[in-house]
Amino acid sequence: MSPSSLDELIEALRCLPGVGPKSAQRMAYHLLQRDQRGAARLGNALLHALEVLRHCARCNSFTEDEVCPRCANPRRDAALLCVVEMPADLAMIEQTQSYNGLYYVLMGRLSPLDGVGPRELRLDKLIARATEEGVREVILATNFTNEGEATAHTVASLLGARGVKVSRLSRGVPVGGELEHTDIGTIGQALIERRAV
Amino acid sequence: MSPSSLDELIEALRCLPGVGPKSAQRMAYHLLQRDQRGAARLGNALLHALEVLRHCARCNSFTEDEVCPRCANPRRDAALLCVVEMPADLAMIEQTQSYNGLYYVLMGRLSPLDGVGPRELRLDKLIARATEEGVREVILATNFTNEGEATAHTVASLLGARGVKVSRLSRGVPVGGELEHTDIGTIGQALIERRAV
Ligand SMILES: [Zn+2]
Ligand SMILES: [Zn+2]
Repeated sequence: MSPSSLDELIEALRCLPGVGPKSAQRMAYHLLQRDQRGAARLGNALLHALEVLRHCARCNSFTEDEVCPRCANPRRDAALLCVVEMPADLAMIEQTQSYNGLYYVLMGRLSPLDGVGPRELRLDKLIARATEEGVREVILATNFTNEGEATAHTVASLLGARGVKVSRLSRGVPVGGELEHTDIGTIGQALIERRAV
Repeated sequence: MSPSSLDELIEALRCLPGVGPKSAQRMAYHLLQRDQRGAARLGNALLHALEVLRHCARCNSFTEDEVCPRCANPRRDAALLCVVEMPADLAMIEQTQSYNGLYYVLMGRLSPLDGVGPRELRLDKLIARATEEGVREVILATNFTNEGEATAHTVASLLGARGVKVSRLSRGVPVGGELEHTDIGTIGQALIERRAV
């Protein structure tokens, strides 16, 4: 008996990670009853982001351009390529102000239990990028979780086999920790003390 | 350095209740990276719901029509008017199959600490509806929380002063409990044993 547009909104809200039926319902009522402006803003932001965002042809992060401003910046050191899991990790490294190279964003990590293998993570794209002329060193800055370590290990093997020099952030980052929740001083130190693998 | 459409999406997601900056970021990445179809569906559902949903002129619940199908149904007993806080509460009462009257949905509750008084809750609209010819009894089915009880008390006073017969769900519903989380057998019993106030 409830209007189909309301049912559809509740159902659609469940695509958000961690949102079950009850919280989807609560969110829908909140938006419709208390924050219609916020709801309109969110609706438009979603459709606009889907329309204009794509993956940078160089670093694979989100951008509105073919190549993102960071990758296109000639003052960046193109000899260094830092591999991170997510854009949030890239942002943390930028905040350390200890790094002036380029990045490659995996947009995930190897996670066999979730069906994310080398193919799903498009490691071929990373290999193509890392073996381009001018790349002198690839710095692995995946998280120090089990999945992040496994990802680093796999990438190191693949790139090592192709003669690419690969390093890993030093273990200044706590074992089991995630970059996003580490203080930037520690990350900066770990970047300076990166070790060959 | 992150694209403005991505920043805007992350910011817009924060209009959802209980979503802080970190979870907004996580949601945005998830939608853009893993569930673009879900994101498009949500964006369209939000804009469509905002466009077509309004409050029923009779029961105040969400509907796509001037008067919702339930209020327009001639087989409903128009002499009974059951007042609930939210559409989810109405749905619970419907599920008991113990009630065939009409409803009025407050879309909230009195909550002085949040600045929701009789004016914000539009109790004038309820009074107008409850004092229409043909309404024989108003059944208060607000929650048995402090705020729900205070709301019931205020509504009972306002309607009692106008000579309207008012009843309250019996205390079969656990004190401090919320309808939405109560088993429908208990709600059905409470409906049958409603007491005059
Ligand atoms: Zn880029
Ligand atoms: Zn109605």
